[in-house]
Amino acid sequence: MPIYTPPLRDMQFVMHEVFKVTDEFKAMPAHAEVDADTLNAVLEEAGKFAAGVTFPLNISGDTEGCKLDTATHEVTPPKGFKEAYQQFVEGGWPALSCLPEFGGQGLPHTVNQCLYEMLNSANQAWTMYPGLSHGAYEALVAHGTDEQKKLYLPKLVSGEWTGTMCLTEPHCGTDLGLLRTKAEPQADGSYKLTGNKIFISAGEHDFTENIVHLVLARLPDAPKGSKGISLFVVPKFKVNADGSLGERNPIFCTGLEHKMGIHGNATAQIAIDGATGTLVGEPNKGLAAMFVMMNAARLGVGNQSLGLTEVAFQNALAYAKDRLQMRSLSGKKAPDKEADPIIVHPDVRKMLLTAKAYAEGARALQIFCTLLLDKAQHHTDEKVRKDSDELVALLTPIVKAFITDNGHVATNACMQVFGGHGYIKEWGMEQFVRDNRINMIYEGTNTIQSLDLLGRKVLGNNGATLKKFGKLVGQLVAEEGVNEKMAEFINPIAYLGDQMTKFTTEIGFRGFQNPDEVGAAAVDYLRVAGHLVFGYLFARMAQVALREIAAGNTDPFYQGKLQTARFYFAKLFPETATLMRTARAGSKVLMDTDAALA
Amino acid sequence: MPIYTPPLRDMQFVMHEVFKVTDEFKAMPAHAEVDADTLNAVLEEAGKFAAGVTFPLNISGDTEGCKLDTATHEVTPPKGFKEAYQQFVEGGWPALSCLPEFGGQGLPHTVNQCLYEMLNSANQAWTMYPGLSHGAYEALVAHGTDEQKKLYLPKLVSGEWTGTMCLTEPHCGTDLGLLRTKAEPQADGSYKLTGNKIFISAGEHDFTENIVHLVLARLPDAPKGSKGISLFVVPKFKVNADGSLGERNPIFCTGLEHKMGIHGNATAQIAIDGATGTLVGEPNKGLAAMFVMMNAARLGVGNQSLGLTEVAFQNALAYAKDRLQMRSLSGKKAPDKEADPIIVHPDVRKMLLTAKAYAEGARALQIFCTLLLDKAQHHTDEKVRKDSDELVALLTPIVKAFITDNGHVATNACMQVFGGHGYIKEWGMEQFVRDNRINMIYEGTNTIQSLDLLGRKVLGNNGATLKKFGKLVGQLVAEEGVNEKMAEFINPIAYLGDQMTKFTTEIGFRGFQNPDEVGAAAVDYLRVAGHLVFGYLFARMAQVALREIAAGNTDPFYQGKLQTARFYFAKLFPETATLMRTARAGSKVLMDTDAALA
Repeated sequence: MPIYTPPLRDMQFVMHEVFKVTDEFKAMPAHAEVDADTLNAVLEEAGKFAAGVTFPLNISGDTEGCKLDTATHEVTPPKGFKEAYQQFVEGGWPALSCLPEFGGQGLPHTVNQCLYEMLNSANQAWTMYPGLSHGAYEALVAHGTDEQKKLYLPKLVSGEWTGTMCLTEPHCGTDLGLLRTKAEPQADGSYKLTGNKIFISAGEHDFTENIVHLVLARLPDAPKGSKGISLFVVPKFKVNADGSLGERNPIFCTGLEHKMGIHGNATAQIAIDGATGTLVGEPNKGLAAMFVMMNAARLGVGNQSLGLTEVAFQNALAYAKDRLQMRSLSGKKAPDKEADPIIVHPDVRKMLLTAKAYAEGARALQIFCTLLLDKAQHHTDEKVRKDSDELVALLTPIVKAFITDNGHVATNACMQVFGGHGYIKEWGMEQFVRDNRINMIYEGTNTIQSLDLLGRKVLGNNGATLKKFGKLVGQLVAEEGVNEKMAEFINPIAYLGDQMTKFTTEIGFRGFQNPDEVGAAAVDYLRVAGHLVFGYLFARMAQVALREIAAGNTDPFYQGKLQTARFYFAKLFPETATLMRTARAGSKVLMDTDAALA
Repeated sequence: MPIYTPPLRDMQFVMHEVFKVTDEFKAMPAHAEVDADTLNAVLEEAGKFAAGVTFPLNISGDTEGCKLDTATHEVTPPKGFKEAYQQFVEGGWPALSCLPEFGGQGLPHTVNQCLYEMLNSANQAWTMYPGLSHGAYEALVAHGTDEQKKLYLPKLVSGEWTGTMCLTEPHCGTDLGLLRTKAEPQADGSYKLTGNKIFISAGEHDFTENIVHLVLARLPDAPKGSKGISLFVVPKFKVNADGSLGERNPIFCTGLEHKMGIHGNATAQIAIDGATGTLVGEPNKGLAAMFVMMNAARLGVGNQSLGLTEVAFQNALAYAKDRLQMRSLSGKKAPDKEADPIIVHPDVRKMLLTAKAYAEGARALQIFCTLLLDKAQHHTDEKVRKDSDELVALLTPIVKAFITDNGHVATNACMQVFGGHGYIKEWGMEQFVRDNRINMIYEGTNTIQSLDLLGRKVLGNNGATLKKFGKLVGQLVAEEGVNEKMAEFINPIAYLGDQMTKFTTEIGFRGFQNPDEVGAAAVDYLRVAGHLVFGYLFARMAQVALREIAAGNTDPFYQGKLQTARFYFAKLFPETATLMRTARAGSKVLMDTDAALA
């Protein structure tokens, strides 16, 4: 019953009109030939796949869930999931942004970003199967041996095999330094791994003949804590030197979690019982190697919430136009009907616009970030590569936490538009809320993201990277500061940018005296930073829209974009006022509470 | 696996130390004899029932859900629910606050409030069965004929029968004026009802031999819209004049909804196929009669979220003390362990204290309101009765919307404390979130509550009732304005009270010119009003705590109360700054958005 239309127009607007991506690609030899028509055609096909193949399986997948055969340790995902995966592979989609040397199509990350946004709108649970594979691919590209690359990458790129990341154990998730899985070196240079992992997304399924697990474990002589963790590749079936499959490796799914959402994805408990693996990267540097995968995954989690925000918005908008209930406060709007459609009510519009603004801000930010990734990897100018890399590192926790928290607000608002029907499964709205809820937790909880942002990315280098982002804001302010039509978009970010500088210094100073001050301020700080970034992006989008309108373009898309930006600055952005106040309220009221938390 | 301890100490604090309820009862002849020991003993027993009988059925009830036999139209709720209901009836709990003339125990509403808070903590889905009955009881007490009272009330009071409210139809929920169920007068004075109802909570089950449905329907000559709705009592089995059961009435459960939560409650689709009913109250005045039930239900829904907030808090607190993960930013706190318990982290404490403050504020407000209900009904002074009635009318939408929205924030925060484990069903945390989610929707969505507050209860009488509440705030400010120790609690509410007056006048003025301004501001306005009320109550609680401490009382409860109040004012109350700003941003950015919402 839910609907989904790929938001191709808005993607094209952000890619071509705001960021002019094909101009940027010209400075990247690997992508210099990529033109707008190719990009648009690829995304049109991607949209057809998402809307036509995986979207119809979203509700049924949630209802059915995954089944584990405890005798064979084999898992059967919901009906249709395997066939959809086969179509995905046949369409060449896993290879889209992979390197040509491993069979990839070599297209920019920016394209993969848009493909995955649509897949997430259509079916987050299904999308996690290929999504995790792509993360495993990136970790092996960055840290695998030549042998590992040769054995695993072509199969991951083609989609013949999938990948996972096995980090969490029952007693540790956030604090991986506590992990206990052991890896014993063998005479042949391989390792025997033993331990128990939990919460392994896409951890077992029947899509492919092999699954490539990337596993964090400890060597016998490893130092305690996070500096004693190594990364291993442990395939479900051992792989012979010629690439053919060998015997079953004892790495078994022993249970599936019963979860609030993403029921279609197999969240596996994995017992590793003397399984053979090979070392990825250097001994005891596993966490750093895994972080390649985790950083990609964090951007990917933001993208999941972008997808859910978009599809929730589309459905709430359609319902609000269709559902007749009460009359407009300012007089009948549909006098020929027995009531007005609920879209006439100001608060219904507010809920819809909240979702729309959060979707469009997130889309702009995600594409901004993946373009930075493309630059960091391929730009000819080393300084551009370095700056882009730093900027994306700064923005990653914002993407992960701000977009997923916004997704929580947005999917709940869209569900609320449906009234009682929003609470009923068949409409699909409550599923968007449940599926989105994990995004605020996994790949580092949103609190962890905020500590990463404030503690490491901002205060860790004395605000140097933040200043680089501030420069971008400053450029826009300088460019448009005297343009009266832009004032409503420029003034708030100019003001917040100034505030942010003082605010950061202040927290840094306090944190120097008492580190708990950083922990107390971090979550609020991240949301303020998120609004500065969204504000900047909405101002840039408004700039383009105003120019088009001034040039006589009558496409209502531009009016819609301006209205969305106005709504954003009037109704969402002002929460920064409270956030700075509560952050400034400090840690004392939190830490002096032993009696309250007895 | 989850835990629950009835919060008797805090209930006693609010009842006896803050509101001195037994002193108040002395001015109510019906309750003049109720003493503190009786109240405390009743609540202790109530807590045992909740924690011991219905709490253990909460997760299993969610997993199992209700089953409909489509051939017989009979519904089987989850295992153990019927037996728990029998124990509830045997304990005399349905009769607790009912009138002695119908077999009730005649205790104050205030006691029933605390009973139901604990039942909701233990198992919201189960609690809705007796909860709806109590609503039906109140509607019949207020509007039933003597015959109806005689036939139905003793059975509802004893719990031998249960009741429902049948309002919603597929095409109308909020807008009951559109409803189509018909009632044809019969020669014997009864009515034949025909129509389809949906979303009927506790609509069918096997607990009792009869179910008393209160049904809204239209008489043949009824005016259109909400002025043409009448209320009928339609029992599942007809009732003979001697009280014995007659033939089955054709009012059948034809389907059960598949919902996000409250799986243990049968949310029924009801087909009424020529069922016999009798008129309650006057023809075409059914909505007014039903509002007796709805107002009680709205307070009851706030109470559901209070219950869930409390139980979510208790579990998150226990987990945060137990779960070892990472070290404190300000140095190891448990050096003998491999990591510190996560309660050392400022943001974990913030999440816990958010839930605690919202639970304690809600408990104070709910008890404040039910004491007003007791006064409105039983106080010897007519002016006190009238004032109390008005004040509770003002506070009802705040109880319903503010407490349920806070419950959403709080249950989600408590779930977040668990990290990935919060997303797993066996821990029970995600169920609290799912169960709470309906509270923001049913009995009038929270948007409807905000329009009721701002449009009807505030602007509808030119702020007269709001001024009465303002007077209470003013009294406290006058009383404690020079007490330096109270300044941190008094200053914010004094300031917000002043702001609120200007703010209300301003919105009233704007709304006079354009009613959509009221619709655009209402949701933000309700949250500001909610914080004024919570702020007032926290100040009163802090006042008691400070006095006890000054008198040398070393019970850490009072320190804990002060710390919670401080946290509330530092971290939660300040959102009023943003809310007033966004409310002032007005309706234009919402209504000028046809291109954005095309």
